[in-house]
Amino acid sequence: MNAHGTAVLDLNADLGEGFGRWRLTDDDALLSVVTSANVACGFHAGDPSTMRQVCERAAERGVRIGAQVSYRDLAGFGRRAMDVPPDELADEITYQIGALRAFAQAAGSDVAYVKPHGALYNRTVADAEQAAAVVAGVLRAGGALPVLGLPGSRLHEAAAGAGLPVVTEAFADRAYTAAGTLVPRRTPGAVVLDPDAVVARSVRMAREAAVTALTGEEVAVRARSLCLHGDTPGAADLARRVRAALEAAGVRLEAFA
Amino acid sequence: MNAHGTAVLDLNADLGEGFGRWRLTDDDALLSVVTSANVACGFHAGDPSTMRQVCERAAERGVRIGAQVSYRDLAGFGRRAMDVPPDELADEITYQIGALRAFAQAAGSDVAYVKPHGALYNRTVADAEQAAAVVAGVLRAGGALPVLGLPGSRLHEAAAGAGLPVVTEAFADRAYTAAGTLVPRRTPGAVVLDPDAVVARSVRMAREAAVTALTGEEVAVRARSLCLHGDTPGAADLARRVRAALEAAGVRLEAFA
Amino acid sequence: MNAHGTAVLDLNADLGEGFGRWRLTDDDALLSVVTSANVACGFHAGDPSTMRQVCERAAERGVRIGAQVSYRDLAGFGRRAMDVPPDELADEITYQIGALRAFAQAAGSDVAYVKPHGALYNRTVADAEQAAAVVAGVLRAGGALPVLGLPGSRLHEAAAGAGLPVVTEAFADRAYTAAGTLVPRRTPGAVVLDPDAVVARSVRMAREAAVTALTGEEVAVRARSLCLHGDTPGAADLARRVRAALEAAGVRLEAFA
Amino acid sequence: MNAHGTAVLDLNADLGEGFGRWRLTDDDALLSVVTSANVACGFHAGDPSTMRQVCERAAERGVRIGAQVSYRDLAGFGRRAMDVPPDELADEITYQIGALRAFAQAAGSDVAYVKPHGALYNRTVADAEQAAAVVAGVLRAGGALPVLGLPGSRLHEAAAGAGLPVVTEAFADRAYTAAGTLVPRRTPGAVVLDPDAVVARSVRMAREAAVTALTGEEVAVRARSLCLHGDTPGAADLARRVRAALEAAGVRLEAFA
Repeated sequence: MNAHGTAVLDLNADLGEGFGRWRLTDDDALLSVVTSANVACGFHAGDPSTMRQVCERAAERGVRIGAQVSYRDLAGFGRRAMDVPPDELADEITYQIGALRAFAQAAGSDVAYVKPHGALYNRTVADAEQAAAVVAGVLRAGGALPVLGLPGSRLHEAAAGAGLPVVTEAFADRAYTAAGTLVPRRTPGAVVLDPDAVVARSVRMAREAAVTALTGEEVAVRARSLCLHGDTPGAADLARRVRAALEAAGVRLEAFA
Repeated sequence: MNAHGTAVLDLNADLGEGFGRWRLTDDDALLSVVTSANVACGFHAGDPSTMRQVCERAAERGVRIGAQVSYRDLAGFGRRAMDVPPDELADEITYQIGALRAFAQAAGSDVAYVKPHGALYNRTVADAEQAAAVVAGVLRAGGALPVLGLPGSRLHEAAAGAGLPVVTEAFADRAYTAAGTLVPRRTPGAVVLDPDAVVARSVRMAREAAVTALTGEEVAVRARSLCLHGDTPGAADLARRVRAALEAAGVRLEAFA
Repeated sequence: MNAHGTAVLDLNADLGEGFGRWRLTDDDALLSVVTSANVACGFHAGDPSTMRQVCERAAERGVRIGAQVSYRDLAGFGRRAMDVPPDELADEITYQIGALRAFAQAAGSDVAYVKPHGALYNRTVADAEQAAAVVAGVLRAGGALPVLGLPGSRLHEAAAGAGLPVVTEAFADRAYTAAGTLVPRRTPGAVVLDPDAVVARSVRMAREAAVTALTGEEVAVRARSLCLHGDTPGAADLARRVRAALEAAGVRLEAFA
Repeated sequence: MNAHGTAVLDLNADLGEGFGRWRLTDDDALLSVVTSANVACGFHAGDPSTMRQVCERAAERGVRIGAQVSYRDLAGFGRRAMDVPPDELADEITYQIGALRAFAQAAGSDVAYVKPHGALYNRTVADAEQAAAVVAGVLRAGGALPVLGLPGSRLHEAAAGAGLPVVTEAFADRAYTAAGTLVPRRTPGAVVLDPDAVVARSVRMAREAAVTALTGEEVAVRARSLCLHGDTPGAADLARRVRAALEAAGVRLEAFA
């Protein structure tokens, strides 16, 4: 809620996750829905031409550009955790941010935040060493970029400790535990498949900062940004529905400062 | 010659051409010799950690940092010409410059020029389409970066046509034709192997802007920068000898503006 | 025509052209249509798991497995010609065939032929040096594998000269010149987009070994195999229609020996 | 010891660990010392041309060829553990063995065994799931290849359980714990740096099947193969000294059956 009692929410999604001949996300459709675009930077997806195009279209639409940094793993789409030594990992993060920044600035915009992808996102929830490495890479890239991630994650602790802004996010299509953390993907029920439920949860997260846990408890979920997924069939349609429902509920959709 | 009759010369060499576990160039030795470092950006060589280290050391020593951009070809070390569509090629150039810039700026320096590597260097001597693509990529990366290359190359034509500064270079260890172009590598005698000859040619290029062609003619070679090679045994020693001889001959060694 | 006056035709298509998270071809649909599967081997597409799956399914259906060998170019999907030195190119071919053979044999089948992909296919039509390199790589891989390609290509000349069987193919969705060669892709009309026309041309190629050139002349097109494309929307449907029409016209669909 | 009281030992080393322009190991020197060559297969190192050359030279000298399989990680030289799903990992193993086999057979030899590299070697000591995946990949590649590894490792358990021969190895330049396992690399003293000590330990391992632990205890180390390292300065010289000392001590150097 802002000072006037209006809920304010950012909508983020992963974009530009093709590579060369391959496409994955419906970037144009998602850019008409989100306020922040997590752009793949070439390590798990995202060839230079795709990066340029996504940046140009995001800039045209006033969608904020973020660096979706990843392990170097095209074959595994960045979904395989890797024991990368901290120094190397930090340098890989800096590299990706720098590459994306060139396209963002050429499009008249800039890289406005950083969000780790896939296995790096999951690992830095609990792994303090890798979380610190990501933050070191962000710091070196300059600009004191905000870090988008899970509340309470080691990543957010390291970012805050280094003086970087942290931005919290929630997932309307993921089940939560009674402790307010995400139910691991392999657990039955971890992913909310019913579109109506996703829509309803989105609105409730925005208006009431709450969600019903998989085990039935009411849980507080306070997030400045809501993550929408764009890589499944029907994802763009669902994203549009979520946005429409949020707007109908009086939620102001706005990128974080 | 500058206004006071002193020859002024830049010395450039390729640096950071390792990848992960592999090393190629003696970066520390070369950084004590050159005034400009062509830093590999990850497409033919140059992992992020190596890029960072070379940038840090170059900045410490006051050596200028340039982006040594390449075709995407780790397996071929960027030495295999590729028919990359111009749009893709331009985007690949922008990507590499952006990535290096993050490390250069973090080291308190910046990317100060661009020089294509290997097959891309050779191809853009005569291929106007790829030359224009490289220039488009440099322009998009911002900063109006000077382009280092052969006098009379399509690359220099395209750069000058786009308003970018061009910086000419010469090779003391390569034979020249009577027309003032480089003798192709496969021709016998194309590479000058005698270190004494390389040293003498370097001094003559700097003091007299001249070289004796492979076929005996005297040829004008006017270059603001001299390229030293760093990837052969004894390369660092030879580079040191060239620098000492140039200094002894009263040549002022200074990076281009 | 065989001895009994029945036209015999092989149908081939590119399969397994995804990589990691990305998919391109509808492999299952195409495997129900073709008699020969050109399986990507990892250099332009084709991760190991995809290779295994395609080999298993092809073996189950009695579809012949071929190695679709390529330049090493995931970012460009093997569509960018590369000046690979002949020795390296030959070794890259051997590597790819060997890798695929492990999966083909594990599935109870084997690699039965070789077909270059994309830019390598196009280049070896006219480039004798690269054609010879491909053949050298095939020979080294053992098994005297047949080489599928365009009649009259340097590739077929080199293969035949080395004692390898050659198998000719035609393209029902590509325009032909009066000389019987393919109209270059950039020429207007180079690709036949009308599905009915593709079906009719397929049948005529099989029954009459003829096609009408883009410029109106009747041209002989004698091919043992017909190449179907699988990477465009509607490709699988069109492939099914072509097969049905060929069968209705009495053409026997059968892989080459 | 064999039936006649003579110690029999295989000497193995990693070979062909360059990539493209980069070299690491002195392959020719090592091939004159070892009886088994662990050849890199392209995932952590080893381009196709290097693989061919190493196979040819190994075959000429009667050195046995093994597949040194790895995670797909050129940037990290296969030294960064990865959470690769078992199915994918198994397929990656099969792919590498198949590729190497083509070169080994072309050289008149064959792939005679498998040894995981780097992080995969270390991980499969204790990780039963990944160990099982490696074994599944070896099985699928056919030939019932022996698996070279640490005695008591999960890898050896999985291999033996699947009916594959297992071959034990020891490291003369690594410190052992009182339990007979390797001291982790980060522990001070983990690597034996004194060449004389390495030579003496090699002979004692062969003649007495024993080694003194880092903490002073006498430990049994029964190994059919001794691993020599080839990627450090002086490695080839040390390998020669070890071989000479073993021969002088009456140890018969012979690849495992």
